[in-house]
Parts: sequence; structure tokens; C-alpha cells
Amino acid sequence: MLPRGRPRALGAAALLLLLFLIGFFLFGGDLDYGRPQPRGAAALDGDLPAGYGGHNSSDCDPPRPRPRPPKCELLQVAIVCAGHNSSRDIITLVKSMLFYRKNPLHLHLVTDAVARNILETLFHTWMVPAVWPQVSWIPNKHYSGLYGLMKLVLPGVLPPDLVRVIVLDTDVTFASNIAELWALFAYFSDKQVIGLVENQSDWYFGNLWRNHRPWPALGRGFNTGVILLRLDRLRQAGWEQMWKMTATRELLTLPATSLADQDIFNAVIKEHPWLVQPLPCVWNVQLSDHTLAERCYSEASDLKVIHWNSPKKLRVKNKHVESFRNLYLTFLEYDGNLLRRELFGCPCPLPPGAEQLQRALAQLDEEDACFEFRQQQLTVHRVHITFLPHKPPPSQPHDVTLVAQLSMDRLQMLEALCRHWPGPMSLALYLTDAEAQQFLRFVETSAVLSARQDVAYHVVYREGPFYPINQLRNVALAQALTPYVFLSDIDFLPAYSLYNYLRASIEQLELDGGRKAALVVPAFETLHYRFSFPTSKAELLALLDAGSLHTFRYHEWPRGHAPTDYARWREAQEPYRVQWAADYEPYVVVPRDCPRYDSRFVGFGWNKVAHIMELDAQEYELLVLPEAFIIHLPHAPSLDISRFRSSPTYRDCLQALKDEFHQDLSRSYGAAALKYLTALQQPRGPI
Amino acid sequence: MLPRGRPRALGAAALLLLLFLIGFFLFGGDLDYGRPQPRGAAALDGDLPAGYGGHNSSDCDPPRPRPRPPKCELLQVAIVCAGHNSSRDIITLVKSMLFYRKNPLHLHLVTDAVARNILETLFHTWMVPAVWPQVSWIPNKHYSGLYGLMKLVLPGVLPPDLVRVIVLDTDVTFASNIAELWALFAYFSDKQVIGLVENQSDWYFGNLWRNHRPWPALGRGFNTGVILLRLDRLRQAGWEQMWKMTATRELLTLPATSLADQDIFNAVIKEHPWLVQPLPCVWNVQLSDHTLAERCYSEASDLKVIHWNSPKKLRVKNKHVESFRNLYLTFLEYDGNLLRRELFGCPCPLPPGAEQLQRALAQLDEEDACFEFRQQQLTVHRVHITFLPHKPPPSQPHDVTLVAQLSMDRLQMLEALCRHWPGPMSLALYLTDAEAQQFLRFVETSAVLSARQDVAYHVVYREGPFYPINQLRNVALAQALTPYVFLSDIDFLPAYSLYNYLRASIEQLELDGGRKAALVVPAFETLHYRFSFPTSKAELLALLDAGSLHTFRYHEWPRGHAPTDYARWREAQEPYRVQWAADYEPYVVVPRDCPRYDSRFVGFGWNKVAHIMELDAQEYELLVLPEAFIIHLPHAPSLDISRFRSSPTYRDCLQALKDEFHQDLSRSYGAAALKYLTALQQPRGPI
Repeated sequence: MLPRGRPRALGAAALLLLLFLIGFFLFGGDLDYGRPQPRGAAALDGDLPAGYGGHNSSDCDPPRPRPRPPKCELLQVAIVCAGHNSSRDIITLVKSMLFYRKNPLHLHLVTDAVARNILETLFHTWMVPAVWPQVSWIPNKHYSGLYGLMKLVLPGVLPPDLVRVIVLDTDVTFASNIAELWALFAYFSDKQVIGLVENQSDWYFGNLWRNHRPWPALGRGFNTGVILLRLDRLRQAGWEQMWKMTATRELLTLPATSLADQDIFNAVIKEHPWLVQPLPCVWNVQLSDHTLAERCYSEASDLKVIHWNSPKKLRVKNKHVESFRNLYLTFLEYDGNLLRRELFGCPCPLPPGAEQLQRALAQLDEEDACFEFRQQQLTVHRVHITFLPHKPPPSQPHDVTLVAQLSMDRLQMLEALCRHWPGPMSLALYLTDAEAQQFLRFVETSAVLSARQDVAYHVVYREGPFYPINQLRNVALAQALTPYVFLSDIDFLPAYSLYNYLRASIEQLELDGGRKAALVVPAFETLHYRFSFPTSKAELLALLDAGSLHTFRYHEWPRGHAPTDYARWREAQEPYRVQWAADYEPYVVVPRDCPRYDSRFVGFGWNKVAHIMELDAQEYELLVLPEAFIIHLPHAPSLDISRFRSSPTYRDCLQALKDEFHQDLSRSYGAAALKYLTALQQPRGPI
Repeated sequence: MLPRGRPRALGAAALLLLLFLIGFFLFGGDLDYGRPQPRGAAALDGDLPAGYGGHNSSDCDPPRPRPRPPKCELLQVAIVCAGHNSSRDIITLVKSMLFYRKNPLHLHLVTDAVARNILETLFHTWMVPAVWPQVSWIPNKHYSGLYGLMKLVLPGVLPPDLVRVIVLDTDVTFASNIAELWALFAYFSDKQVIGLVENQSDWYFGNLWRNHRPWPALGRGFNTGVILLRLDRLRQAGWEQMWKMTATRELLTLPATSLADQDIFNAVIKEHPWLVQPLPCVWNVQLSDHTLAERCYSEASDLKVIHWNSPKKLRVKNKHVESFRNLYLTFLEYDGNLLRRELFGCPCPLPPGAEQLQRALAQLDEEDACFEFRQQQLTVHRVHITFLPHKPPPSQPHDVTLVAQLSMDRLQMLEALCRHWPGPMSLALYLTDAEAQQFLRFVETSAVLSARQDVAYHVVYREGPFYPINQLRNVALAQALTPYVFLSDIDFLPAYSLYNYLRASIEQLELDGGRKAALVVPAFETLHYRFSFPTSKAELLALLDAGSLHTFRYHEWPRGHAPTDYARWREAQEPYRVQWAADYEPYVVVPRDCPRYDSRFVGFGWNKVAHIMELDAQEYELLVLPEAFIIHLPHAPSLDISRFRSSPTYRDCLQALKDEFHQDLSRSYGAAALKYLTALQQPRGPI
């Protein structure tokens, strides 16, 4: 977001660019240079409903009864959001709003392409009852790079039949029911079109430091972090011409360095003071530098909206900042799943997909021993794709993305993985909301991880007793942007050369020519906790012979990788084809449009086996690469596996899932799937 | 808690005991058998403030303006709480209350000895501004076992100058500001002494099933999960005589199986209906079986208090239960640290210790590179001792408690530890509020852990960037109840025989005769992830010779354990004395009144070394036990250690802490501490 209320030092080039864009924007359209309408500044407090004034008036006027929050009315909210970081910020804002709300909400999210992608997925999977998120991407070139001015153009961007809207910055936090804010529209006179809270610093007085030349404003000016807009009247009043004219004129003499929508709003209001309805200060308590906010809330026991409009954000100095921070952290770490609660007493249509889901859940038998499995399979997890800034890899015909999933207890693998795999990665992380913040700090404090822009982290929020391993894999897979994917697991480290070798192999084997193949990367394991990673196949073989390394799961479950034929691999100089066999679960490289994982397999067991089976059913060739290898590092058994390994019910349920999987396989592939049935009926070893 | 509003099947013995206790209670005091005052039941709704009625009246009466919540008034709340599980429940209630409150609160916690111990520690460490917790243990024999009747005797138990109090069950959750409830006292007429919400089931009509014989009640009766009490008037009116008389009379003809305070309250009210002020139903929305609560909240958009008064608790069937559950889970998992926020606009004295703490924190220099270390050292973590039911070990003169600390990523060690150590344990767990709930489920689903009553789990709530290792050790140490403690770490498994061997050694070495000694348990490690634990010293030595085991940290930091003299240990038949040397950090058995750990060492490094140094300074003999051993299992480096190992600042800060520690040591032990200074100045290897 562009800065509000404070100049940020811009380099000369950036300044030029900004001016260019503004010029383009201002003069590119159909401007009507109508006469400005200068008028004296109206007394700020004069327009206030008594008891609702800025901090100057509230101690003398008697309180007027509050407007009643409208029961069940649909409230309209618009938020401008661009980029990865604002897409995270907006979630905390929305959580705080949902926590206190009692009304249905229509969210108008005005975004760039990055935020659109993130927010569409997020709200689609969040499934909050009585919330309609409408994510609008603004593709117009006029707008890109000008998100700081976007609030000015909302009357033109939002649906033409929209009459009223509350516009919010992404850095505000609600401490109250937004319907109370909505109710303030009732105080608007016939002429008023914009509701704003007074600016809570002396910025617009221009006396904060020498050579401080703020834009013109009425008195202390207004802050645009929270706006009530009468869109109908703005459109009628020719709002677009009005603000463009004012901006154009002011830009002739004023610097653009501090330019943001707020300056233009203030300049327009200075000229047309009857447009503004001042709002009670508690609806935008501004924790900016030089804030005078204390004058407001020291008298009001009820804070309504906190606005973190200092560049210092949570680290701003303020007498009560700890309380404000606690409120913010409350929602930052709040389990968003809990906000899926329905509204009472208001007709509450369910979000798309939710009804079908509820029907499916209702059909489950709670007495079924596998009830929790089936419930988990149906769970729609909230998904936040590209949780951290991410630069998509340049398009290359043989590029490969490493795909894996993890939870908190494997974070320490990430640095090593980054050292071993210099290419793009798509990782799904299974986290609570609070853990997602820990993860954020972990990446920020890691030099290795911060340096990588090509690793996409997708947060899948935790819900339910089982680790939804295949749902996680599918999220990571769906977000891989290269033509090929390496489907790995987080406990493996690839050979240092693997990334380059895979790309070369894909090219050499002409997979892009339509050859349908899965390239097998042989897997090994060390049982030693301290371990020096082999830098070549020769070194690996030496370690294998010395007993320091083993083929993967050699001791417990050799069938899982036996078809890879490690003996042949030792000698192989060229890729060789192997045949599918029961229980085969190699790590493979495939085109990214490969079949998805079967999401019925949650927790532990059979999740990869089923996927390889489906690749085979679709007649993927299985080609083992002679120089490729990955090594599994030892780790303590995860909580879930310890919990469920001992459970006979777990094994029974897994068997039931396998049977159902096979029935589906037969349905899809007919007689060709018979061989899997035969294989299934063989006695099984440990999971 | 005793059941409310629903009979629970009691065995004949329990029934007899209950009757005996009641009889004892009723007839043991100075009872005045004054005449009962029968009167017709007043019409329930007649006494209601309009708009505040039970669900029968609220749809016709026009709403009356709400009483204003009292600004800054101190609100009095009483909660009866007994045992480990209620001590957990009460925290969720208190969190929900604190979240919405805007007033100072005085909490009167009426407890048994277990809950007193837990809650005193919890509130002392929670340090919530403007909350005065007063934990009263009820030692009177009359009362013990009668917690279900405790609410009746509150007028006698609470401070005699207390005029009004809100009484809450531990199974209610607030969804609103408690001051609004307090404000309802204003509706009491001169005669009214008790405010109650109507019972939201037909229980007292006695028609729920055949042979259902409820106690007498006015109409549908009242629920006692939320009570407003005018204590002054109750005392004046001779409340104690009143209810004892009614109860005595009714017990002549009615069964005591369903007996709880609620029945007696209702019987008294039936007799004296003018005593009661009916409260709006939203202040006690009862999710009992057969609940009619929907009639209440389907019309009120504002739910105030949810009451989980079904034995099914969160699994109760109800149209809106998911919403209620979400509210409950919100506070169950809410980070209690965030509730330490101060109140605005009310004079807000700090809890004991908080002022001193704030001064110390204010003196820290934010620019100091070690600022975060020093901040963490000063952090007072909330501590919940004996988070799960725990049976103190029987008093035995040579008994030893294993003391250790862990966080979530080591939970999977607990089962193995239980198998290796059959004796008492005192474990500190460093968890978030949400993780504490995961931990609870983990123990519940583990047969091994559920079977153990002698393992005390103490939750220390997370706050700050460093793992406060020595604070955790001190919490676990302070809660050990045997005369000796074995100071271990969570990654070690003891020899199967260690517990018995230690007790025998303590007896044999006559440590209880005043010999000041620390028994050294030699430590080994395996780097192999899969590992068969040696069942004897001979087997251990064989594994050592085979290279499958090593002495602990042999590869990285042999100085840490070199003074144990492993060569001598191989041959030793008897305990032998060793001398302290720089960097020595053995695992030892000491009397539980040993010196505490130095809590300045947070994160990783030097935390045990400092403790052993202090033992040596206090002239503990170091005696190595010839048959004792523990083995360290491999694990991935923890998040914190990976993060900080690479940081030069971290090393510098650790050095600064060490220097300060030594200065303190010199101050305490004078010239005798000189040898530690010399040792400190030697070059150091890795942490």
C-alpha cells in the first residue's frame, strides 16, 4: 500500500515514474475542467451528530442515542488489496470483522492479479456463511501501480447498483460490530456523500517539521482508513471529474511524493466541505506517528476500529499500544475455521459448495468406526496459496518444480532442502493460524529462506484429527507452475545435482514430445542422525556398501521400492524401464497435469501407492534415472503415526478405503484395473 | 461438579455417603426450625422487566432500554471449583469473561485443596491488570465432598462486607460484557435477593419420563448456572435457616439422587417466590438435554452466556451447537497472555509483582543486542500446575521424581519415558493455549499415559522468542513431591532398572542422613534412529565397544561429561567420587531442596553447566553410580537451536550472561568462586 499521511523518501526514478503514471491517469481520460468551487472551511464539529464528534467536541456535548445496528441488513464493504503481504493483512482485518459481525456481508475485494489469485482461493475454501466475497481484478493498465489511488475510483469500479459502501484499509482491526458503523449512514444529510474520521495528527497543519508542505485540508483533515461512501450520490455529483480536477490543480504546485488518495480526498473536501459527514473518532483510532488518538479513546470506553497507520505498525510507541497489539494478535492468530459459524435470526444462505458438503456430512454414520476418516476426507480446509512473496519461475520447457508437504515439526528441513534443490518448489504447509505466524517469522529470520523467491509456500489450515496428506499434495501440485513436477516428501534431500539432471533428462528423453512417462528417482535412507551427504553416485554406492546407507525402507517394507531394481541401478548408464508391481511407491517426476492424489487417504498409509497405481492405469512408462537419487533423513515418528500405528480400527478403516479406491479404479479403467484387485488381495505387511 | 438438573446414577454406597454428608451438614449446625412460609407461586413473567423475560414473554412486550453497564465499577464474581478438571474448565470461562469485560473484577474462587494450589499459581503468574483473584480453600469438613451445594452457603463463606455477587458455574461461556449482567441488579425490587434465568427444559414439570419425581419448583423452575445474589439481604433474611429448613423437609419425601444446589434453590423459591428476580434468558442459554433454549435465542440476536449443562458438553445435539462450540473453542484456545491488556479509562492498579516487573522491563535498553534475552528472562509465564489429574506419590523416604521439560515436538517421547521410568515424574511443558488442548487429547488417546496417575504435567504458556529452559526446569523441580529428584532431559531414556536402583542407592549411601551429595547418572547416546535399548550395564558396554553407542556428546563436546570418567565407570563396582571441572554438566540426583536453575539462561547453552557449578559451590559431593545409565536418542535439531546456532549475537549474549552469572556467584560464594572464573576464561568450544 502507498503510505498515508506521511511522505516516504522516493528515489528520483521512482518519483518520475509515479508522476508519469499520475499524469497518464489524470490526463488520459475524459476530463472536464469545470470551475473549482472554493468555499470556506465548514466548522468541523458543526456537522457532527452530538456526542459523536472528533476529540474536540465529545467532552461537552451530551450523548445522543446510538443508531441501532440494522438487523439482518446486508452490509457492503470494499477493500483494496494488492500483493502477497496485503493479502495476509486483509485476513486479520476480515477475521476481526467476522468475529463481531451479526449481519450478512458483501465483501468487494479490489485486487491486483496476485491478490486475486490468493483471495479467490482463500474465500472459496473458507466458506463463511452469510459472506459474499467478490474478488475483482483490476486489469486496466491505468490502475496498475496506482493502488494508493484506487479508493478514489471505487464509485466507478464497484457495481453500478451499489448505493452505500464501507471502504477499509487493510491495516485496520475491528473491535466492534461493523453494523454500528453502517448505521452511521443514517446521519448523512442530503448533501453528504463521504463519512470520514478526522485525522488524528497535525500533519495537515503543516507544522510538524520545516519545509513540510502538506496538501490542503479542512482543519486537521480526515483519515481515509475507514470511509463511508454514498456511491449513488457520488456518481450523480460527478465525483470523478471533481477529484481529478482538484488533483490536477494541486499537482501544479504541490509535491507528489506523499501522494495517496487521502491527500486528494482532503483537497476535494476542503473545496466542497458539505460533502463530508464527520464520523466519531472511535471508528478510526489512528496509531500513526505523532498521533493525538489518545484524546479520543481516553474518553471513550468503547474502541471501535484500530488503524495501524504508522510504518512501524505493531511497534509504534503509544501509551496503550499493548492493548491494541493484543487485540490485533487475537485476530492474527485466531482460528479462522471458528468464523464459519452461521448467523442467528437472519436468513443465512450458505456459500457455494457448502450445502452439498453439509448434505454429504449429514449422510455419514456417526456410529461407523471409520466416521472420523470419512469426515476428514470431506473437510474443506482453508487454503492460503503463496502465503509469502513469490516470483513465478520464468517459463522454460523442461523445468521441474519440487512438490512436497509438511507441518510445523519439519520446518527445520527447509533450509537443507533449499541448499540441495536450487530450482522452484511448491510446498503445502499444514498449520494453525498461529503456527502460520511462527512460520512467517521462521522464514524472515532465515537468510537461506529469505533469499529464495522461487519457493511457493501454501498454507492449508489445520482441521480434524488426521493429517490430510493427499489433499496437501494436491494443493502443492496444483500450484506448481513449471511443465514438470518432482513429487517428493519433506524428509528427503535430493542429490545436489538432481535439479539440473532432471531437466537434462526430460529434454534428452523428449518427454515434451508427448512421451507419457514417470521418471523414477531412486530413494535411499540413512539411519544415522549425523550424516555427510554423498556428492556423487560413486560416493553413494560406497556408503551403501559400507552400510551407512540403505535403500529406502529396506528393513521394514522392501516391496515399496523393490521394483526400482537397485541392483540394476548400480550398473545402469541409461534410463531403464521397470514394471508396476503391488505396493510400489517410488518418487517420480511427471508432467504437472498428471492425475491428482486420491484425497480419501488421510493420515498415514497407502497415499502414494494409490497414486502410482493410477499412473500405471493411465499407462505412464516408469523410467528409472541412473544418476538420480534422494536420501531420507531419520526423524522421530510423528505424533499422528505414533497415535494410529497401534490402532486396529485404523488398519480396518484403511482397508475399507483401499477397497473403495479399487472399486472406483475399476469403474474408471474397467478390466485393465483387474490386476490391481489381485494385488490388493495379497497379504499386507506393515503400513 | 455435581450434576445439575439431571439425575446421575449413583451406586448405593455413594448414595448412602451423600445422604450421610447431607444429614451431617444439615443437622450439625445450629438450625432454627422456624415456620415455613408457604405462598402461591408468583406469575413468573409478572416480575420480569419488560423485554427481559423468559422465552414466553419476550415476543409480545416492547423492549425497555437496557440498563447501562456501570463504568469502572468493581464487579464481584464467585465461582466454585474443585479438582483438576474443573480447574481447567474455569480458565475457559474466565478467558471469555476477560475478553469482553471493561470493568475491574474481583474473582472469589471457592476451591478444594487441589484447585486452590492450581489456581493460586495460575492467577499469580497470569498477572491480569484490574483483576483481583481471591482463592479461598474451604477446609471445613462440613463442606468437603459437597461442592454441589456450595453455592447455597456462599453468603456465609464470602467476605461479610460483600453486598452483591455474580455466581457462575465453571461450564458457562461469556459472549458479552459481564457488566451488562451486573447492571441487572438495578431491576431488583426491595424484596428480591436472587436473580436467576428460568430453567430451559421441562425437567421440573416432572413429565419427562415415567417415575420422574423432580423437586418442587415455580413453573419451569430456575437454572443456577448464573446467579445474581444480594448477599446483604440474604444474610439479613436468614437465608441459611431458610434453605436448610426447606431442604430438610423435602428430603423427607424426595430422593437425594439428583440433589444439587439447584433443587434446593428452586424449592426455596417455590416457597418464597418474592425472593427471585427472573433474568433475561440470554444470560443463561442452557444447552442441556431436552433444552428449549431455542425459544430464547432464536429471537434474540445477542447471546450473552452459553451454559454447557449437558453431560455431553460440546457434543450435545442442537441446531446451533456449531456456533456455540466455536465460541467455546475460541476461548479454550485463546492465548491467555493477550488478556493481560489493561483497561482504558478506569483506574487500573497492577497485580502484585507487575509494577516491579514493568519497572525492570522499562530499564532495559532496546538497542542492546541482547535485549530479547533480557526481556525473555524477565517474562513471567503463566503456569498451570498439574494440568491433568495427578495423584501425589505416597510419602517414602528415598523416593525419586524424574524432572524434565519439553515442548510439543517431544510429546512422542512420553510413552517411552513412561515405560522406562515407573516412578513419579514432574514434567514442565512449554505450550500455547491451543497446544495444551492438543496435549490433553494426546494423553487421553494414549493407553500408556492415561494409565499413569503419578506423572504431573505442568503447563508453562509460551511467550517470547526463546525457550525458557531453566524457568521450565524450576517449575518442574518446584512441583516434585518426593525427597529426591533426578534432573534429566526429555531426550534421554533411563535404564529400565534406574528408578529402583536410584532409590536403593539413596538408602545405601544414607543421603537422608544429611550427606550432601549429587549422584551422577552417566549419559550415553545413540546416533542410530532405530535402536534396541540395553537391558543391563554389560549389554550397554557391549554396544559401546561395537560403536553402536557413544558416551554423550563424545563427538562434539567431550568436556561436558569427561569428569564422569567413563573408563573408571566401566570397571566400577561401587559409587566413586569425582571432582568438578569446567563445563561439566552431568545428569544428577539431588535432594529436592537443591539450588534452583539460573533463569537468566534462556534458549540454548550453559543452562545445566551453571547449575552444576552452583552445586559444587555449595559443596555437593559428586558421586558416580556404577550401575546407572541413561541414553540420549537422536532427533532433528529443534527450531530454536537451528535458528540461533548460526547467530554470532547469540554467542556474544551468552558470553555476557555467563560473565554476569559469575559475578553473582562471586558475590554469593566469595573467594571460593574464584576457580569458576579461571575456568570461564578458558577458550570455549561449541555451545
